Amino acid sequence: MNAFSDRIRRLQPSAIREILKFTSYPDVISFAGGNPAPEAFPVQEVKEIMNDIMDNDPITALQYSVSEGYTPLRDWLKDDLANKGIFNWNNDDLIITAGAQQVMEMTSKVICNEGDAIICEEPSFIGSLNSFRSYNARLLGVPMDDEGIDIEKLDETLRNNRRTAFIYLIPNFQNPTGRTMSLERRKQVLELAYKYNVYIIEDNPYGDLRFSGDDVPSLRSMDTKGLVIYAGTFSKTVAPGLRVGYMVAEKSVISKAICALQVSTVHTSILSQMIVHRFITKYDYPAHLEKIRGIYGHKCDLMLTNLKLKMPSSIKFTEPDGGLFIWGTLPSGDMDYFVKKAIERKVAIVTGKAFLVDENKPCMSFRLNYSTPRDDQIEKGVDILAEVAKSIYKA
Amino acid sequence: MNAFSDRIRRLQPSAIREILKFTSYPDVISFAGGNPAPEAFPVQEVKEIMNDIMDNDPITALQYSVSEGYTPLRDWLKDDLANKGIFNWNNDDLIITAGAQQVMEMTSKVICNEGDAIICEEPSFIGSLNSFRSYNARLLGVPMDDEGIDIEKLDETLRNNRRTAFIYLIPNFQNPTGRTMSLERRKQVLELAYKYNVYIIEDNPYGDLRFSGDDVPSLRSMDTKGLVIYAGTFSKTVAPGLRVGYMVAEKSVISKAICALQVSTVHTSILSQMIVHRFITKYDYPAHLEKIRGIYGHKCDLMLTNLKLKMPSSIKFTEPDGGLFIWGTLPSGDMDYFVKKAIERKVAIVTGKAFLVDENKPCMSFRLNYSTPRDDQIEKGVDILAEVAKSIYKA
Repeated sequence: MNAFSDRIRRLQPSAIREILKFTSYPDVISFAGGNPAPEAFPVQEVKEIMNDIMDNDPITALQYSVSEGYTPLRDWLKDDLANKGIFNWNNDDLIITAGAQQVMEMTSKVICNEGDAIICEEPSFIGSLNSFRSYNARLLGVPMDDEGIDIEKLDETLRNNRRTAFIYLIPNFQNPTGRTMSLERRKQVLELAYKYNVYIIEDNPYGDLRFSGDDVPSLRSMDTKGLVIYAGTFSKTVAPGLRVGYMVAEKSVISKAICALQVSTVHTSILSQMIVHRFITKYDYPAHLEKIRGIYGHKCDLMLTNLKLKMPSSIKFTEPDGGLFIWGTLPSGDMDYFVKKAIERKVAIVTGKAFLVDENKPCMSFRLNYSTPRDDQIEKGVDILAEVAKSIYKA
Repeated sequence: MNAFSDRIRRLQPSAIREILKFTSYPDVISFAGGNPAPEAFPVQEVKEIMNDIMDNDPITALQYSVSEGYTPLRDWLKDDLANKGIFNWNNDDLIITAGAQQVMEMTSKVICNEGDAIICEEPSFIGSLNSFRSYNARLLGVPMDDEGIDIEKLDETLRNNRRTAFIYLIPNFQNPTGRTMSLERRKQVLELAYKYNVYIIEDNPYGDLRFSGDDVPSLRSMDTKGLVIYAGTFSKTVAPGLRVGYMVAEKSVISKAICALQVSTVHTSILSQMIVHRFITKYDYPAHLEKIRGIYGHKCDLMLTNLKLKMPSSIKFTEPDGGLFIWGTLPSGDMDYFVKKAIERKVAIVTGKAFLVDENKPCMSFRLNYSTPRDDQIEKGVDILAEVAKSIYKA
């Protein structure tokens, strides 16, 4: 003994984490993070709300609470999601979690035995992949195209791995690629889930951050068999430091998730839940979302315009309709060298390898975040990236 | 598939949870919970602190933060615990968690393979036992006497279970018995941990709530081999709704715990951490602790005095020096009947069975909480319990 468990022995802190430490230096321009824009935080409103809570309901905010979450917040979400077809009052339940990440962790715990397969888009969000790894799941990556996950390869992977716990998908403005899964592809994925009788986790942290194009129906709103587990969060729309997300699923799944939550965090910070509830009900939340979309749409456009103008045309970029990320792909050469050169020039970007199931696979892509840097940093950072790129690739 | 994982299939919501739902009725006197006294919450101070945070450092409170926890809070704790011999600057690390419960969950995840044994005092805290169960650990209960866990039986259990992940102990004012482990017993437990080379989790949620007698050195302060993992919390000393606890262990253990925390809650609510840090540093925290000890000492004394005066002398009670709980033991008869009769008379108590590894074992004890009820509720509740008891047992 005194060794670590099998599930945790090989788990390492994420590679991005190490890059993010570097980005805390003041003279570094970071396109590496995934933080929401701090100028979008409702500071004055949260202050007013806190005073209201402490004047009128302090004991609720400070005492132990129920594991399911703050009832008024749960009820608001159930109503809102029922209107979007994501919550069904007869069959479903909804609980509040410490961010959407906890949904990944709890779903793995509840659904996945050690050694079971979990299928994900490749590339995908490293935080979720590490949640799955932390339960000793066999991660299987399926490649994507511009419409989303490759359906033939997904079918083949499911056929060859009958002990698959679930398929993990980020259909809207995917992290890291910024891609949105097409309606047709969503329907095909659902058909495959039914064919093989496997759960889907639909992770939708960025769904409210669409700044162009039309919403595509969520997988869960089209699910007729209760196989889609849905994760949402207020981290990108209110504030991530509060750690408030939520999980929607068929009742039996949620009842087991409640057990898992009860033995971990007991309940999500009740003060945080009350702040979120009051912000979305007592203030003009639609106007707040509109403001955030404006900020992100502007920053994305600024970065894309600069990239197209300044970078060698052989380097390709996705053009997201929302979310936080652009995905760049080099035509050839050594990605690690490109990232290293950028970091030497104090522009931090994340190598695409960090988002692969097998980080040793070749990868010619990199992720750019536009939500955190200021406008002048976006322009200057792209200038520097372009200089680095032009020293390697022809314009 | 579509079944649940092996580890979670048999996990049920705790029995106490069901009793606690009953206690939310206004005319029920509850000795069943474990909530801190709401009159001890520093409401005005927390309000002042929130305003200060939102005026002077709002972005830190609302943005993503590091998984390890808020650095000023970690530093304060390291200093404080180093003074008590619990933290060693050379060998140890400390991280902030969403309450001490998350320490149990993460330690299980990091240390315990499915099927490994975890040894605990019997009875013990149901929330921790369920954390261990949620990783499919084989729970092994070792009986206690007034000095703590039975050393011979612990030795025997360790000898017969070489795949033991750790020994779980609550040395101070144990939940549910209110007992404090003697110094001699603590030394013997450490010797056994060294002999068999197994970790100990020292869970100390009530350590700051001593209202009589002298502190006994913590296991971790006497540990020379880095085998004691220590869990603390502000749930009983500041406010549980904030969800702020901490974990101290040897550096390699903490580095794995950081991975586990990162893939679950990402980080503990940073607003909660900042509130706790400002409260313990900018206000008179020792005076606040003294006040809480006064409240709990008074309530414990009131309950014990009433129990001794009114209950049949054949029913025995522990006499705790701190914490939240008194443990009563019937001389004979049917415990379930006694609890049922009390609940019929609208006094909620918890059957001792809820704290056993095997809830089907016979148990003649029950747990009483004195921190949550008001003085008049304590007197009236004991009156009713005494009437119920006298209808069954001779005075």
